Amino acid sequence: MTMNDAAAEQIPTIADVMSARQRIRTQIRTTPVLSDPQLNDLLGCELWLKCENLQRTGAFKFRGASNAIARLAEMAIDGDVATHSSGNHGAALALAATMNNRGSYIVMPENSVKTKIEAVRRNGGKIIFCPPNQAAREQGLADLVANGCIPIPPYEHPDIICGQGTAVVELSEQCPGLDIILTPVGGGGLISGSAIAAKALIPGVAVLGAEPLGAADTALGLSRGERVDQFPVDTIADGLRAIVGVLNFKIIQDQVDKVVTVSEAGIVDAMALVWQTFRMLIEPSSATVIAAIIESPEDFSGHRVGAIISGGNVDLGKLPFKP
Amino acid sequence: MTMNDAAAEQIPTIADVMSARQRIRTQIRTTPVLSDPQLNDLLGCELWLKCENLQRTGAFKFRGASNAIARLAEMAIDGDVATHSSGNHGAALALAATMNNRGSYIVMPENSVKTKIEAVRRNGGKIIFCPPNQAAREQGLADLVANGCIPIPPYEHPDIICGQGTAVVELSEQCPGLDIILTPVGGGGLISGSAIAAKALIPGVAVLGAEPLGAADTALGLSRGERVDQFPVDTIADGLRAIVGVLNFKIIQDQVDKVVTVSEAGIVDAMALVWQTFRMLIEPSSATVIAAIIESPEDFSGHRVGAIISGGNVDLGKLPFKP
Repeated sequence: MTMNDAAAEQIPTIADVMSARQRIRTQIRTTPVLSDPQLNDLLGCELWLKCENLQRTGAFKFRGASNAIARLAEMAIDGDVATHSSGNHGAALALAATMNNRGSYIVMPENSVKTKIEAVRRNGGKIIFCPPNQAAREQGLADLVANGCIPIPPYEHPDIICGQGTAVVELSEQCPGLDIILTPVGGGGLISGSAIAAKALIPGVAVLGAEPLGAADTALGLSRGERVDQFPVDTIADGLRAIVGVLNFKIIQDQVDKVVTVSEAGIVDAMALVWQTFRMLIEPSSATVIAAIIESPEDFSGHRVGAIISGGNVDLGKLPFKP
Repeated sequence: MTMNDAAAEQIPTIADVMSARQRIRTQIRTTPVLSDPQLNDLLGCELWLKCENLQRTGAFKFRGASNAIARLAEMAIDGDVATHSSGNHGAALALAATMNNRGSYIVMPENSVKTKIEAVRRNGGKIIFCPPNQAAREQGLADLVANGCIPIPPYEHPDIICGQGTAVVELSEQCPGLDIILTPVGGGGLISGSAIAAKALIPGVAVLGAEPLGAADTALGLSRGERVDQFPVDTIADGLRAIVGVLNFKIIQDQVDKVVTVSEAGIVDAMALVWQTFRMLIEPSSATVIAAIIESPEDFSGHRVGAIISGGNVDLGKLPFKP
């Protein structure tokens, strides 16, 4: 996705995240934090779930999209916005644009999930369907940009990263004294913003990521000391299939303590466990954080852990666990 | 269900509800309150949802059960507890008993929903299956009581009513200045406790109930000026199929301003609307409050409404709406 190279080099600071928080404060939902003593006994740690599944548009993505749109207004940049997305970023950008009286164009693969297509439409986005491949998606977006639209990338941009980081700002206030912040890892928008916020606001905190083994480009990149740009991705966690962004990977290398990989079966079991414990349906992507605690207990045992539940946009007709 | 006649005559006061709140405070979850501007535009009022679907055991029932169990300890009454239930009260009583080191026996119809059977077991309850009729359920409970168990009724008891009322105590603090408190109406435990709390804590508030037209014994009783004890119940809202209790009806007559009836189609549409807006699956019983606002807008238009979402224990395999 097109981005300004200078901006890409500019790693955001906590001041940028706090500005984002002020900027989007009245547009986002302050999401609740839930805990359960029985679950804590099972997991061997004190777990607090920051429920971004209950965020507007059903995912944390609305934070970054809102911040990016509000920044355009601050910089007096007029015009419609555009992105390509088969998932949550498209719906989030559409709603953020509509709320700020901008048009939005979302390039979507023609095989996108019906509920996600409907969510984009409901939020006021105009959909451009394209064949389901990366080249067609990028061409569709390039055409829109050629026609004057402003591209808003899903994760590799300082404004997006800062917006996503605001969830941890809230969490640090709602639940003081956390030892560990834990988030899913996909393109890296959420974990990079979370790390910037956590390291500045929570003394002594460790920041950990949870990544499906089937999309473990970030964990692999960290172990090799450089970003991996090819990975044979295959995971149920549809929100985490992206390769981590260049800017995002830089921040992760610098500020994230560890990325733990999780199994596919662990993800599905964790979805069922959260449904059983909280009567919340969470996305497979979100369930990675619970799977990480179960599969790598040594990293979490006895700690006070704040985990971001990243989204709740599941297809009710295709749940992967037996209720 | 067996209850002490003297207690039945004793209508609880706000002091009793506040005592219940102190008693159960560390056991229950303080549930979040959610709102959405787009939904408010659609409904024509400012709606705040008190999310008891996110309560432990997935329903407000855990409040009343916890209070009843804690009261036994205060009165130095030892022994296991028992109830008959095909639904949320059984799971709630089982968990409350386990957390207080008591045994619990739940008489369940042998055709009960599998997830509800599992919830009772998971929470430490011992299940006695019986044929699926009222006489067998009552006989099963009578046998347990004859063997020394303490019966805990689902709604017609002051301790249960006071426990349920604590949700509105929290809501009045989380969301000041409400004009209307709105809850579903089934056996009447929730609305009677809510009315006692609301009328004492929220100046000038109106208390309204939402009842399926297919189980409208309370609305009919109010219009006739006396409780109706026979009604041809047929509704998707499985939590609201009970006939209102005698004590509960007295409190409703005295302290509830109006009970609005809702259609079956309205309940199903409201479930879909809440899923779409908040990514929460709520029980049909809970959806009655949203259906009431849509089908009787004149009662809510322009007001600041606090509604109790009573539970989230839906059967994922049998959702009544198309996602």
